[in-house]
Amino acid sequence: MNDRLSAQMGFLLEADRLKSVLRATTLADGSRVENSGEHSWHLALYAMVLRDQAAPGVNIDRVMRMLILHDLVEIDVGDVPIHSANGAAHGSAEVLAAERAAADRIFGLLPPDLGSEFRALWEEFEAAESPDAVFAKSLDRVQPVMQNLASGGGTWVTYGVTADQLESRVGVKVARGAPTLWAWVQEKTTAWFAAR
Amino acid sequence: MNDRLSAQMGFLLEADRLKSVLRATTLADGSRVENSGEHSWHLALYAMVLRDQAAPGVNIDRVMRMLILHDLVEIDVGDVPIHSANGAAHGSAEVLAAERAAADRIFGLLPPDLGSEFRALWEEFEAAESPDAVFAKSLDRVQPVMQNLASGGGTWVTYGVTADQLESRVGVKVARGAPTLWAWVQEKTTAWFAAR
Ligand SMILES: [Ca+2]
Repeated sequence: MNDRLSAQMGFLLEADRLKSVLRATTLADGSRVENSGEHSWHLALYAMVLRDQAAPGVNIDRVMRMLILHDLVEIDVGDVPIHSANGAAHGSAEVLAAERAAADRIFGLLPPDLGSEFRALWEEFEAAESPDAVFAKSLDRVQPVMQNLASGGGTWVTYGVTADQLESRVGVKVARGAPTLWAWVQEKTTAWFAAR
Repeated sequence: MNDRLSAQMGFLLEADRLKSVLRATTLADGSRVENSGEHSWHLALYAMVLRDQAAPGVNIDRVMRMLILHDLVEIDVGDVPIHSANGAAHGSAEVLAAERAAADRIFGLLPPDLGSEFRALWEEFEAAESPDAVFAKSLDRVQPVMQNLASGGGTWVTYGVTADQLESRVGVKVARGAPTLWAWVQEKTTAWFAAR
């Protein structure tokens, strides 16, 4: 007999399904592909650990909240790997429309105040314009790079990615929110691609 | 040539191993057991969604940070299920000592300022005395109850748990930080145990 709490708990039960959404990237040890739930946890930890890489004024608590929520729409849409379909599938109009419909349904499970707040955080992340969102996006893009480096190439091998494609699809976006971090990572990716 | 960043990234790589630590609880659909990485993500989302269940003065951002970190020691020690060994293994002196050694090693990978900060958050969580830690513990205890209810009993069946054991091992601790939440959940667990 608590409609608000029932809606909150219903949302949390539905969210459990994100643990069954599989990504293209593997764990660092290559043992299996990663799911979007554990990926979101790892990103929140990235935010905590790498806060000194963010531009002044970035609010790390908001970044963490965005990262915890950012993939929930994948419960309906699935993960669209950034290097799949030669880089064309990710961010296509079709995928964006499906993600929007998923956001309507999933955030719509919550009491309206929480639903609007979470939806706004997700929209902000997707727009990638505010300093908090730009930094959150940098982390979301750099984590799979680190997993690929650790596992011996991962999705770069799967999708035949070149160093230039990595730079344009990933590097530019990491550098936008975390330039020093990308410089550090780039040294390692350059060496990896050079050794191919 | 950035020792601080190298230490931060080394810690984040090591943290990836939490995704391979298996818990006794399954996903809500019962398809497989949950790992401690995705469990930690789910708990951070619980904190965001259920913040109105916390006592006044609880800082939800700190609660989220605690929950993101709270299981990292399991990389070395593994998850000790709360109902295993008839409730005696969890919190034993042996397990606590091993977790302390794991915290030394894992938080010791970080630059000292971050390492001390994270270690202190983990110690606060473990002590379960501050309002933030008490609420974080309530969420950590209630989430597996929701997974068990959804999957048809889960670890209550595995370990032959009684309603009284659930109340003393779990209910009391959820109620301490989130009494209204436990009253809502208890209605459902009471019905489940009555139907056995
Ligand atoms: Ca836990």
